[in-house]
Formats: sequence, C-alpha cells, structure tokens
Amino acid sequence: MAFHYLSNVPLEQAKKDYFGTLKGQGFLARSEYVRVPEALGRMTARAVYAHINAPHYACSAMDGIALFAGDSFGATETTPIVLSKGQFSVVDTGDPIPEGTDAVIMVEELVKNEDGSVTIHAPATPWQHIRQIGEDICAGEMILPSFMEVTPAAIGAMIAGGVLELEVLAKPLVGIIPTGDEIVPPCADPAPGEILEFNSSIFSAMLSSWGAAAKTYPIVPDRYDEICSALAKAVEECDMVILNAGSSAGRDDYSVSAVKGVGQVLYHGIAIRPGKPAILGCKGAVPILGVPGYPVSGIIVIEELLRPLIDIWFGRESRAENSVSASLARPVVSGLKYREYVRVRVGSVGDSLIASPLPRGSGVVSSFMKADGLLEVPQETEGYAAGEEVRVRLLTDEKRIQNTLTVIGSHDPLLDELADLIHRENRRLFLSSAHVGSMGGIMAIRRGEAHAAGIHLLDTATGEYNRSYIKKYFPHGGVYLVRCVGRQQGLMMQKSNPLGIASFADIVKDNVRYVNRQKGSGTRVLTDYLCERYGIDRERIYGYEREEMTHNAVAVQIACGSADAGMGIFSAAKIYGLDFLPICEEEYDLLIPESVWNTDRIRQLLKTLKSDAFRERLEAMGGYTVSNPGEIINIG
Amino acid sequence: MAFHYLSNVPLEQAKKDYFGTLKGQGFLARSEYVRVPEALGRMTARAVYAHINAPHYACSAMDGIALFAGDSFGATETTPIVLSKGQFSVVDTGDPIPEGTDAVIMVEELVKNEDGSVTIHAPATPWQHIRQIGEDICAGEMILPSFMEVTPAAIGAMIAGGVLELEVLAKPLVGIIPTGDEIVPPCADPAPGEILEFNSSIFSAMLSSWGAAAKTYPIVPDRYDEICSALAKAVEECDMVILNAGSSAGRDDYSVSAVKGVGQVLYHGIAIRPGKPAILGCKGAVPILGVPGYPVSGIIVIEELLRPLIDIWFGRESRAENSVSASLARPVVSGLKYREYVRVRVGSVGDSLIASPLPRGSGVVSSFMKADGLLEVPQETEGYAAGEEVRVRLLTDEKRIQNTLTVIGSHDPLLDELADLIHRENRRLFLSSAHVGSMGGIMAIRRGEAHAAGIHLLDTATGEYNRSYIKKYFPHGGVYLVRCVGRQQGLMMQKSNPLGIASFADIVKDNVRYVNRQKGSGTRVLTDYLCERYGIDRERIYGYEREEMTHNAVAVQIACGSADAGMGIFSAAKIYGLDFLPICEEEYDLLIPESVWNTDRIRQLLKTLKSDAFRERLEAMGGYTVSNPGEIINIG
Repeated sequence: MAFHYLSNVPLEQAKKDYFGTLKGQGFLARSEYVRVPEALGRMTARAVYAHINAPHYACSAMDGIALFAGDSFGATETTPIVLSKGQFSVVDTGDPIPEGTDAVIMVEELVKNEDGSVTIHAPATPWQHIRQIGEDICAGEMILPSFMEVTPAAIGAMIAGGVLELEVLAKPLVGIIPTGDEIVPPCADPAPGEILEFNSSIFSAMLSSWGAAAKTYPIVPDRYDEICSALAKAVEECDMVILNAGSSAGRDDYSVSAVKGVGQVLYHGIAIRPGKPAILGCKGAVPILGVPGYPVSGIIVIEELLRPLIDIWFGRESRAENSVSASLARPVVSGLKYREYVRVRVGSVGDSLIASPLPRGSGVVSSFMKADGLLEVPQETEGYAAGEEVRVRLLTDEKRIQNTLTVIGSHDPLLDELADLIHRENRRLFLSSAHVGSMGGIMAIRRGEAHAAGIHLLDTATGEYNRSYIKKYFPHGGVYLVRCVGRQQGLMMQKSNPLGIASFADIVKDNVRYVNRQKGSGTRVLTDYLCERYGIDRERIYGYEREEMTHNAVAVQIACGSADAGMGIFSAAKIYGLDFLPICEEEYDLLIPESVWNTDRIRQLLKTLKSDAFRERLEAMGGYTVSNPGEIINIG
Repeated sequence: MAFHYLSNVPLEQAKKDYFGTLKGQGFLARSEYVRVPEALGRMTARAVYAHINAPHYACSAMDGIALFAGDSFGATETTPIVLSKGQFSVVDTGDPIPEGTDAVIMVEELVKNEDGSVTIHAPATPWQHIRQIGEDICAGEMILPSFMEVTPAAIGAMIAGGVLELEVLAKPLVGIIPTGDEIVPPCADPAPGEILEFNSSIFSAMLSSWGAAAKTYPIVPDRYDEICSALAKAVEECDMVILNAGSSAGRDDYSVSAVKGVGQVLYHGIAIRPGKPAILGCKGAVPILGVPGYPVSGIIVIEELLRPLIDIWFGRESRAENSVSASLARPVVSGLKYREYVRVRVGSVGDSLIASPLPRGSGVVSSFMKADGLLEVPQETEGYAAGEEVRVRLLTDEKRIQNTLTVIGSHDPLLDELADLIHRENRRLFLSSAHVGSMGGIMAIRRGEAHAAGIHLLDTATGEYNRSYIKKYFPHGGVYLVRCVGRQQGLMMQKSNPLGIASFADIVKDNVRYVNRQKGSGTRVLTDYLCERYGIDRERIYGYEREEMTHNAVAVQIACGSADAGMGIFSAAKIYGLDFLPICEEEYDLLIPESVWNTDRIRQLLKTLKSDAFRERLEAMGGYTVSNPGEIINIG
C-alpha cells in the first residue's frame, strides 16, 4: 500500500461538507413502532391521536341516585316529587350511569321512603354530578404532536386514549468494527503485544447516552479484503458505521482504501488533535467514520463528528455548550496547524476556577476519566500562558467541581483511600488528586491552585521534615501544616532480591537497573541526599534518568522486570509483592492554605483523617505509623 | 369493613417519620455485580482497583530499533558505535520491547550498514522512546472510588485495567400492585364500567427515569385475602412496594387493613391534595406505599414519598428544585387543611412568565401531560390572587417554555394541527393551546397572557365577525387581527338523524337532548343569537345548561348517545361520524398583540398558516375554506 499524505481540512469545513453530502444522499431518521408502556423517552415520529374517549363511559361523581333529569323538573320544597323504584338507580362514585338516566342526585339531598321510593325537593339539571365521557381526552384528539419526547404522563394519556402502540423515531443503529492484528477481546491476562479492545465499549456507552444503539462486530484483522467485507455487511445492517483503528497513513492501514472500496471518502485527515487521521466516508446515506485507534482520539472524533449526526437524526439541537471561564494552571502549547483538545482538571479554590492540563498522550484513557473539562485551542492560536483565563467546556457538572477538594502534590496511594472515605461519608464531596511531587505541591498552594498538598521534604541540614520548607516558601505564613502519617521509605527490589542488594549503595552495581522519581518529588530529594551521604556518583547509576511520577509506577517497573530497584514507600512495594529494604521513616504531611481552612471540604478532610476507617485502611496497606493525624503542626 | 377517618399529618412530618422508621429498620441499598461494558450510568458500590497495568507491556513509541541502552554509551559524532545484528531488533510504533532491550533509537538517527549492522552517533538513555508499563493505569491503583457514576471513559479505564465486572448499587426493585374489581389491562375497546389500568405504566416510567426498576403484578380484585397475599409476595420479592387504589376510606377499601395485616401502617392520610388518602406502611425495611387510584393523586404521592426513598437508596441528593417565578393568570383557591399541588401551564409572553392553572380533577391524566409546572400552595395558605407572583416548580425545561407559542381562546382542532406543523418545521418551537372561548381569548390578550387567540365572534347587529369586538376591547389598538380560516358551523346530530331534526328550531322538541358550549365561547354567542332569531325560549331547551368546553367534547356526547344535538363545527362532526346541518360560515381569525409580532414564534406561525401543508391538513379535516390565511385584516 502506497504511503500517502492526509488532508488537513478545518473541522467546521469538514462537518459542513460531510453533513451536507449525507443529507443530499438521503440521510434521514427511520421510524419504528413500539408498545406505549415501553416508549419512555422515545420521540414521536408523527402526531398521536386518541382512539377512544377517556373516560369512555359516563360515571357518577357522587354517591346517590341516577335518574332522568326530566323526571325531577318542577320539584321544590313545597312541591316535592316522589320517584318510584323504577325511576332511579342507586349509584356510587365511579359507577357507570345506567341507560336512560342523565343526572345524579346526592344521597344527602334525598329522602328515602319505606316503599323504596325517594322524595326530592329540587330539580336536577341534566348531567349534574356526572363525569362526562371524554372529560380527560376525546377520541380523535391529538395527544402528542410529532417529534415530542414521550413522558410518563403521556404514556398514561395514550393508554387512557386507547393507544397501545405508537410510531417513534428509531434509535440509529451504529455498527462498530474494531480492526487490528494485535487487538484482542477484553480479558484479565493479555499476553505482551496484545492490545485489549475496549474502544468499542467506550463508544457504545457514549452512543447509548446520546440515544443511539450500538452493535459491535467481531475484531477484523489488518487485511484489506476482510475489512471490506466487514464494512459491506455493517453498511447493510446499520444506519451509521464506525471503523476503528487503522485510519492513519501507516503501514497496515487499509481503512481508507476499504472505505473507498465500499463507498466514498470525503476527507482523510482533519485539522484537530488528537483525532487528525479521521476518515469521513459514506456509502449513500450511511456515514462511515474511520476513527483512530487511540481511545482519546477516537472519543474526540466521535464526539465531534458522529454526535452531531445523531442530533440531526433526532432533529434536535446540538448539545448546549456548558462552558466556564477558568485560569490556566500551566501553559499549553499548541500548533497553528490544528485545533487542539486538551483535557483538564478543573478545581474550585477560593473564588476562581483553575484548569490544570492533564497528560496529553492519546493512549491515556484514564485522563479522560479524570478530566472535568476540555480546553479547545483554536487552529490559529499557538497556545495559552499560565494564569491566562480560558473557556473550558465542562464534562462534569459544575456543582461537583464546587464540591471537590483539590489535592496537588506528592503521591501516596492513601490519597485514593481518602477520596473514597470522604465520598462515602459525604456523598456531596469529592477529592481529586494530582501527583506533581512535594515541591510541585508547595508551588500549587502558593499559586492558590489547591486546597491541600501532600509533602514530605527532608531538610538535609537538620534531618527535619517539611517545617523549614514552609518557613522558606511561606515567609509570611498563611498556611497550616497538618499531620497526616509517618511512612516507611526504602529501596524496592524484585521479589526475593535476586541481585542480593544489601544497601542503598548497591544501586551503582553494574547489573542493577535503577528507576528514579521525577525532579521535585520528595522521594527524589531523599534519593539525591542518600547518594551524597553514600558518596555515590549519580552518573554511575544505570537508569538514574528514567523518571516515574508515582511510587506505584516505580514499583510496577520493578515488578514487571524492566528495572531492579527504585526508592519508594512500603505500601507501594506491598501492592506488587516486592522486596523492601527500609531506609527511613518520613513525615508525610498536608499543607493547607488558611484561606480555605473554614470550608466544608477541609472540615470533612480533617474529620476523615481522624477517623477509625482511615486508620484501618492504612493498617491494611502497611508501612504507615499514625499518631494524631489531623493535628496542626507548629511551624515555629 | 368499618368506615374510619384518615389522619391529616403534614407532609414534612410524615416524610421525616416514615424515612426515619425505615432507616431504623434497616432500609439500605443492595449491591450486585454487572459486566463492565453494561455498567454505564450505574453507581459503584465500592472502590474499584485495577487488576493489571495499562499498557501491560512496554512498547515502542517510535519506528526504529530497540537495544540495550548500555551498549550505546559513549557513542558520539566522532566516536560512533556499530551495533551488530544480534544487538538490536527493528521495531515499529506499538511493538513490544524485546527481552533484554530497554531503549529505542529512532530510524532517522541511525545509519544502516550493508552487513545488517547499524551505526549510531549518540548514546540512548535507558527507556527513551518507550511507552512504559502502567503509563495509563498501574495495577492495584484505585480507578473509581465508591458511589461514583460509571462514565464511558471509566468503562474504558476499567477494561484497560483488567476489570471485567464490578459491584454496583442495584436498581431498587419496586413492585406495583394494581387493585380493583373494575380495573382491566389496557385495551382498545373497554366495556362501560371497566377502567383501564394505566397507572402502573405511568409509575413504571417515573421509576425508571429515577434509576429504579419496576415490576408490575397482575391486577388484584377488591378482596382482603387476595390483597394480603399479593402484598406478602411483593414484599418478599421487591425492595419497595406500591399498592395502587383502594387507599381512601370508602366501601371496598381493604388496602389499609391489608398493609396492617402484612406489616405496619405509620400514617393513613397526609395533608396534601391531591393524594390525601396515601398509606405510609412498611414491612421491616421494605416500604409499602398505598397510593390513591386517581392517576394524578398517585403521581403526586409517588413523587413526594417514593422518589426521596430512591434518592436515599442511591445516597444522592434530592432533585434540585428548578423553580421559577411566574404571574398567576387566574386565582387559585385552596384549603387551609392541605398543601395543594396545582398543575399549571407556563407561558412566556413578553418579559414575564405566566402560570395558568389546569383542570384540577385528579382523574385528568392529560392535565399532567400538558403541565409545564406545579404550583404548591402551602398548608397555611388559602390560595393566591390573579396576577400574584408565585413560585412554580418546572416540569419542563425553561428553554422550551421560552420557545412556546401560547394560544388561548376559542377551540378548533386545527390548533393541534398547527402545533404539529410548527414543531415539525422548526423543532425548537412549540405551540400550546388552551380552550377558554373567544371572549376568554380576548381577555387573555388584554392581560398579556398569550401570543395569539383564536376568535370567531359574530356582531349580531352587523352580521360581521370579530372586527367590532376588537374595536370595543382594544380601543387604542395594539393588536393585529390575522386571517385564519372560514369554517362551517352547524347543528351536529346523531348519525342518520334518527330524531328527524330539520332546522335549528327543532332543538326545543320534547325528545331532543341538547348539549351546549360554555358561556363566552363564540359558539355560545352564535347559539344564543340563533335562539333569538328563531324566537326560542332557552329555558325550553333540554340540556341548555349542560356545558362542554370544546367542539369535540360536544360531538363526543352526541356520538356516545348521551345527547342528540349540539352546535359545532363540521370538522368535529366529521371525526365522530355525526350528521351535520350547516347553519353558517364563520370567520375564525387569530388575534395577535403587536408587542409579540416581531418574534420567531409569530413569524413561524404566519409561515405555517400560509403553507401548503396547513391547507392539506384543513382539506383532510373538512368544513374549512381558506383564502389568504396569515394576512392582516384591516380593523378599520
């Protein structure tokens, strides 16, 4: 297959041309019949008219007697009328009005006589105290116009009107074809080189939340003819088709040729990132969208190109953009060639919203899960500076952001446990943590971007933790240092320590592959201090430049055999069953600005720190010592 | 069964006691396991941790060669290093890193030699250009805390983390038991006295929209023992139970005894209307809610008492009250004994919102369908005056109200067709019509409550329609009169005219049962004018006092045999297959305030009036003449 270059058409242009072509080729919603009790949330395809009256018979609105009103005309206090047994029927509320009668007199207004007759002292007007036929709905009347959503009350009204089935817009059926030799169905123990096929599950869930139905086809290997026949089948069976992966211009990418083989390709390549190698194709009125294999790219392409088609199908307006203004925590650099989508966390600290860009790798699906918003950098913009006010399209509801405790700083898995405990105890509140190291945490607090920062910074001159850093970086005060835990730091090594590492100094041994933490993390400060103390030349450590952002990430590299040793905390070593050489116990504390001290979020944090549940979780994790968590440490 | 009185406990008190008792008896959510791809929108019951790393193997981030970085140390421009074939492997982006290698050099940075070796001019740092294991998610890390909603991206993250199943809060299963001897399953041709059982369909739909699951049991006749055993079974199988109907204190009402027989009753009777005879019962931790048989009462009781229990189950906050301030179109009178719920239409005319109370009958399910909001009149309040500003809890979204054309005035089924056509043509726009007669329409326009009013008022002095009324009621102008249709008015009579009615004057005949329209309607004005012209004494018309609000309602009474004749338009007679004695053609026009003339809603109305589609609908309905609809009539 010849290598070819992709086009770089601006998104708006691509959408206009694509949707225009599809409409021109007859893209239109199908309709279908559904039973009324199952129609909740569906959209009527045409007006619905009542078949019968509701109520469908006249019934008494009172307890009393039913009579022919004419028989009562002329009755007064002085000239009462006696009705014989044959002239009336006793009725209760809700009873049908007997043939030949047309009025009800309340039981309180009659005198019952011994012979079974009744005496009345006032005339009845025809149809008094009778619930008329059609009072609620008349046969032939319109119950619902076209293109209206069916509500619970509408379901009741339709059944009352004798309508048991109605014509609604069908949910568009979207076929999803995963492709790729390396792709395997989801499982718990994939072999190296096998990529779990989870894109179709993400896409199906997105489609379902937009009112569409998804049909996932079996995984197709990277072969032109197989992709063609899978496409032909899906185009036949579905209203829209997603062809996943293989849409870039690389080696095994048969997608664009296959789409051309089956139908037509409007564009291959649009000016967005991630998502550039999208294929905008169709066969007749059936759109065929080629989306890149990386989940984040796929999500963006489907959101920008398929969601509007579903809106067109249902004839509804496109989603309302729920966007907010936020201050950017870090600069965002973007090319002039693309509109770029940057996933951000949004924190609400003090009066303003802070947007922190998340990792931009398009393979990182967890970043979409953690994202509170999307920052769009327009094509003609090179990016934004830190502190700049930007518009962020929210992916979560704003109330949740207002109730989220933002923790930025040193990593510890206990932060996840705190997040769980806080939300379990108070469902309104959430904790969101970002791992940028202890120094990063201090900077985030200085810039007003976080409610709390986990820090463990050793003052190598005094051997003391944290206090001297606070004095240095917050010379005018304004922060509290709150005790969290003592935790065991040490050297994590492969299970059973095959290399016989006996001391920190052994990390320079020839056969030891080290894995380090990033600059600015407390553990890196400790590592460098230890190197100095042991007189180790850092250049001699194999892997010193290899940086990971969390204790767990370091432990994972060792557990998977791609490294032999790395500094980290006991609880991380325990998760992965690693050997652990204890080196010191350090103080992991929380730094909290005074300005947010008096908030529900901090109150709940302190309460949870002091709880038995937190202590129990720490015990289960191991390597922690707890004494008076939540107390304020005198900075002095 | 002894007649007994109901309690009248205030709603807030009842809720507090009821929910408190249930919690004390162990009311708590169940959890269940679901497959991850099916977990969209479900709520985690506990924290979810990753089982495997994602990615689970190290892979190349570039096209190039994989090597052991140590082999490259010392390479420079001047001292290149040659790697033999055995020292490296060719890798493409995404390929797993082969055993024994730990770095990738890009293809652009190497020189390929003829013997298959490569020459490099710079050292590789360990793990350069490699996507690390766990870059996205580390095994053992928390993916989601407890009680979080599962999003599409979370589904992807869980599968990527090897999690194929998770524990979520179960949807509470709510059993619905319909009772009543007269209740029959939904059908298209119920016999007189049979009541269609549609409540369970309404309730199921409500429950489903709140995240619960409903199970409807077969209809149980009004027998104590049968209700008891149905209840016992439902309590066994479900998390909550709704016992429908039979909850008032009347003749056949075994409900409260049955609930007592199976469990306990906290309250029978709460101070709300509709909904007073609710039964608040339970067996252990399973709530048993007895709700009245009238659909509107049932909806209110379930909304106020069961919905909060479902919120408690899921641990979520109760619904956010979306309430708006609106000016009341008509007074609302309410008792001091109850909190009253009044269903209202909400119209947006000019700058303010107008709330118009809908019929309050609790059997009228269509009123709930038409309601845009609920007005709550507190227990200690006697009601509100017309024009008073009230808070209305919205049942529709406010944007829809802002886009709704409010038509108040004379009834014609063509208004429903206009509603359908307008919404078909512009899905953003809606038409809502209320039938209060021509004079009611004029008053609504004067009070600024409507965008348009259908009127057909005959000036008996001149024989002219509408114009003289406009001059009288709008002496300073400010309104447009817009031509709509000419329509045939006449006497509607039973099919084949069995009573041989030959002229309007025959309605006074002894055996003719007449059905009239309400005072203020144009048709009533016409009727009274005809009586005068024919010298008919209205007191002699049997049924003159029997008033219906629409042409259709009059026609229905005749079609069902409960009346013999009534004035109305041809199109209504046609729907019900009635005989029709034409009397005159009248002008049915639309009155539109100048203040709303320049709005999208009116522009669309005029466009639709002039459309072929509207003309075709009128032709199908019959009895209309169309000439220049949408033109402005010179009032002169």
